[in-house]
Amino acid sequence: MDQQDQQEQQEQQEQRDQQYMRQAMELAEKARGRTSPNPLVGALIVKEGKVIGKGYHKKHGDHHAEVNAFNSTKEKAEGATLYVTLEPCFHYGNTPPCVDRVIEEGIRRVVIGLKDPNPLVGGKSIEKLKKRGIEVREGVLEEVLKEQNRIFLEYIQTQKPYTVIKTAMSLDGKIATSSGESQWITGEKARAYVHTLRDQMSGIMVGVGTVIEDDPSLTTRLQDQKGKDPHRIVVDTRGRIPLTAKILHLDSEAKTIIASTELMEEDKKKALEDLGATVLMSPIKNERVDLKHLFDKLGEQKIDSVLVEGGATLNFSLVEEALVHRIISFIAPKIIGGESAKTPIGGRGILRMEDVITLNNLQYKHFGQDLMIQGDIR
Amino acid sequence: MDQQDQQEQQEQQEQRDQQYMRQAMELAEKARGRTSPNPLVGALIVKEGKVIGKGYHKKHGDHHAEVNAFNSTKEKAEGATLYVTLEPCFHYGNTPPCVDRVIEEGIRRVVIGLKDPNPLVGGKSIEKLKKRGIEVREGVLEEVLKEQNRIFLEYIQTQKPYTVIKTAMSLDGKIATSSGESQWITGEKARAYVHTLRDQMSGIMVGVGTVIEDDPSLTTRLQDQKGKDPHRIVVDTRGRIPLTAKILHLDSEAKTIIASTELMEEDKKKALEDLGATVLMSPIKNERVDLKHLFDKLGEQKIDSVLVEGGATLNFSLVEEALVHRIISFIAPKIIGGESAKTPIGGRGILRMEDVITLNNLQYKHFGQDLMIQGDIR
Repeated sequence: MDQQDQQEQQEQQEQRDQQYMRQAMELAEKARGRTSPNPLVGALIVKEGKVIGKGYHKKHGDHHAEVNAFNSTKEKAEGATLYVTLEPCFHYGNTPPCVDRVIEEGIRRVVIGLKDPNPLVGGKSIEKLKKRGIEVREGVLEEVLKEQNRIFLEYIQTQKPYTVIKTAMSLDGKIATSSGESQWITGEKARAYVHTLRDQMSGIMVGVGTVIEDDPSLTTRLQDQKGKDPHRIVVDTRGRIPLTAKILHLDSEAKTIIASTELMEEDKKKALEDLGATVLMSPIKNERVDLKHLFDKLGEQKIDSVLVEGGATLNFSLVEEALVHRIISFIAPKIIGGESAKTPIGGRGILRMEDVITLNNLQYKHFGQDLMIQGDIR
Repeated sequence: MDQQDQQEQQEQQEQRDQQYMRQAMELAEKARGRTSPNPLVGALIVKEGKVIGKGYHKKHGDHHAEVNAFNSTKEKAEGATLYVTLEPCFHYGNTPPCVDRVIEEGIRRVVIGLKDPNPLVGGKSIEKLKKRGIEVREGVLEEVLKEQNRIFLEYIQTQKPYTVIKTAMSLDGKIATSSGESQWITGEKARAYVHTLRDQMSGIMVGVGTVIEDDPSLTTRLQDQKGKDPHRIVVDTRGRIPLTAKILHLDSEAKTIIASTELMEEDKKKALEDLGATVLMSPIKNERVDLKHLFDKLGEQKIDSVLVEGGATLNFSLVEEALVHRIISFIAPKIIGGESAKTPIGGRGILRMEDVITLNNLQYKHFGQDLMIQGDIR
């Protein structure tokens, strides 16, 4: 084979690898919002140019993607190539190590998207496979797979939730009129997408002011499919939440968590717990719940992701404490006006232009007349 | 010729007409900002499939587009088709009526974009041409030509300036930090485009607060070409403008207009006039300059277009008085925060969601990291 042929063959291999990895990624995506705090993982078994097995990790506690893929095959996987979006696991957990299954099945080549991000085990399975003479390629579609598993990657490394602030404002920066009306700034399509976000995240967070003013249910209401409610987290420094609040009387599998401090009265705490709510106590910082402490606690509760839906003061405190990873801002083509009308992010604010936070990784998407701008912090 | 052939021929004609009209429109566009208060007009003379003449109206007082096109031809225009974006003029003005020139030149067919919007003369030239046996087609690219001449069309009908509010805010709706810093929210590309807008408009308007705080020069600074300064209009109810303000000491062909009321002291008025400024007096309405009156006055001064660059209070008053036609909003992917940080449109604001203004005709354009959203009111 001359050099040119070799190069051409390599390019074809590269194309095939990317194509199958993308299929594996799409399989993984099906479980979004269901695997927490596990990653999204998809696997594909390809033999002689034919996909003979497919699988993905469906939910926490279930089989891993590779196992589902092997179990789906009708013919022997011997000599096949395994495509998997995340390095197969090395240790016994809920399930036996996938790396051993890969070896047992006689796989000839393994193409991996992301290496296991856990520094204690990352690369160990790859090493084991190579030692058994199996060809391993890693890093295929690495960047898009990192985006797909951004929640898992953040949580596994920091044990704190990946946090998204969602805001909705007019083209002049208002989230309500100066008399406080806010229904609705954005149209139906944008609001429907918010329910998709709720379905995908483990927790939803609001300040107690939002509960007092709007009495939202914070559940997931999807049009076509069954939604999963996120755990409801209310930041309530002084225990001001009304015992009649909707979120304390829901028929929902998700928990209602009241994040408070010693400023909440004992009786109120007991009453909330009697209603089935979880009360998480944090120290006081700047007269408010110490949010860093709270987020550590939420991580301990295996809440790997939080969607913050206001209000403006809570939003700013979270940004200030560097607890936010992404901002999703819906902009409606409306003019409201009003010097005293509320804006998405309030608090004391950043004082100097040089300290202002610049978002990167910008994404734009239209929802009817509204535009969504999404950006990452850091 | 059978029916199918006929239809095909008509479609080809339609395509040709649109194509040549677009060329005429592009010619017209070259004079943007130079023809005020006249329209932008372009003309093309096409004979036997060949463009034999081109012209556009270059500036107020100069030849009309058709005349420039005829004067540019090297061969006889007899039997040719004239494409012109606006109906040829019927009356003697600064120049003899173009309709007569068209007839004299022996043009066989005239394709017109927009009918003359003046109800007293609109259609008269078309009628005259038809009477002379000339084939006339009108309404080609009508919608885009209306957009091109939106300033002229508004001004000719209302005698008031076509008014655009330009704002620049962060992704959380702030035009400055809560300590008042505002340089710069947007990046270089967005700011450069603002100078293009200034070049295209007859007037630029700010509230006196902006002059006191920022002392801007409000001139047009383009990178590559010679810019035209817009007339500077400061809304200054009480005559608070400092006599040292930059805009009172510029070397610029444009006027500086101070829009005030009887609350301005006579001495101040005289001092301003001594510095070369024009002081326009309006009645007081809600303790401020009566903006409707002011805009009538600006129309009388042949200011056909105004770019409003703040601040928030003036912006809201203009919106409230229904004097605004378009909003151009630059959004920078930044987070500033601050309950007291200023937003683009302030004042008392609209109180009820049902009364909120919805923009239409939305346009989006990226300027580096910043996004421009443009929308029309009404």
